[in-house]
Amino acid sequence: MGAVKTRRMPRAVREQQMLDAAVQIFGRRGYMAASMDEIAELAGVSKPLVYLYLNSKEDLFTACIRREAGTLAEAVRAGVRPGLPADRQLWDGLRAFFAHTAGHPHGWTVLHLQARTHGERFAAEVAALRAEIVAFVTRLIAAAAREAVPPAPGCVRAGRDTRDGDLPDQEVTGLAEALVGAAESLAAWANTTPGVTSRQAAATLMNVAWSGLGALMEGRPWTPPAVDPAVS
Amino acid sequence: MGAVKTRRMPRAVREQQMLDAAVQIFGRRGYMAASMDEIAELAGVSKPLVYLYLNSKEDLFTACIRREAGTLAEAVRAGVRPGLPADRQLWDGLRAFFAHTAGHPHGWTVLHLQARTHGERFAAEVAALRAEIVAFVTRLIAAAAREAVPPAPGCVRAGRDTRDGDLPDQEVTGLAEALVGAAESLAAWANTTPGVTSRQAAATLMNVAWSGLGALMEGRPWTPPAVDPAVS
Repeated sequence: MGAVKTRRMPRAVREQQMLDAAVQIFGRRGYMAASMDEIAELAGVSKPLVYLYLNSKEDLFTACIRREAGTLAEAVRAGVRPGLPADRQLWDGLRAFFAHTAGHPHGWTVLHLQARTHGERFAAEVAALRAEIVAFVTRLIAAAAREAVPPAPGCVRAGRDTRDGDLPDQEVTGLAEALVGAAESLAAWANTTPGVTSRQAAATLMNVAWSGLGALMEGRPWTPPAVDPAVS
Repeated sequence: MGAVKTRRMPRAVREQQMLDAAVQIFGRRGYMAASMDEIAELAGVSKPLVYLYLNSKEDLFTACIRREAGTLAEAVRAGVRPGLPADRQLWDGLRAFFAHTAGHPHGWTVLHLQARTHGERFAAEVAALRAEIVAFVTRLIAAAAREAVPPAPGCVRAGRDTRDGDLPDQEVTGLAEALVGAAESLAAWANTTPGVTSRQAAATLMNVAWSGLGALMEGRPWTPPAVDPAVS
């Protein structure tokens, strides 16, 4: 990243280099401790050039969040092929998610920890990505519910009388929220626990989530006890 | 909360009133926008008294996080009776968790959103609570795995050869991380979605999680496809 490279490089390419460096430094040091000097040095450019291109530390951090959120969402979308059965789509999506977060640990730290820890402006950027992923998983679960064999007539599921193969919309959204929260938590754990591969993380989540969903969709939910005095 | 109450009240009682007011204001407005004037007014005390007792806005916020984390952990512990079967313990724990977060929405906002959004010092307070809850759930799953019927000799589970009823430690921790992440995500969703009760949130998570765990522990995990070209 020496002096030779700083000449005659297109702006777009150099900006990506700055973002690469910034994601690494923000991910390693945290937003507050990260220095623009170190970012410029790692990118092989002068500090004034970083400010010229990306304006401020705040704007640079925002640009990092947007890029990392975009590439993560794109990786998940690209990993899933719509024609396949729902469990295969979910497995492919999880594999893509955990492979991407494992391959971009600093990017994931920026999105999952840094962006949420330094003010509402950054947190809102991440919330938009999260809402998109929840919507994607919601559609997947709804499709799986339609594919599933309808339960016997009059079967009561989650306190409701359901006569067709669909789960109530609200329940589907809740299941998607649960899955996304579980995936976020597991990605952070997998990235900080030696010996956990992205495939293992995805398999763990499929074990806990899909087998549960599968039973639920066949009309075999876990049944809460009839008497429940512990909590009103 | 008028002038009458400000006389001759024990310090401990008055401090709790200040924390009650502060949790409400922080939860509603966010840490940055919350004003010490508003907190003092809601607590029915003078602003100098708030500073005398709790030193600074930062220290007041830290005291709020500690108290809300403590009461949440205590509510979950109190909800679970150790002698019962593992699924019942988990159900009771989830019921207690969702009942507490639903009954203390501002406290949950402070813990789940505010505390993580305003700097590493506050985030570390919440991380300690989270680690305690993950450890609790890990013990629960490990106990459930021991209770479960051992799989057939030579049965391969999650790519490993397991000959006894135990799951590998790392897998148990991963399952606990997934469950806790799912519960956090669901609590935030339940608190912001009209018509979702704490019992429904707990039932949704038991459906997706326990039925999955149940199948896993009986040696019937969801099986990843043998050929998996989508992600390397």
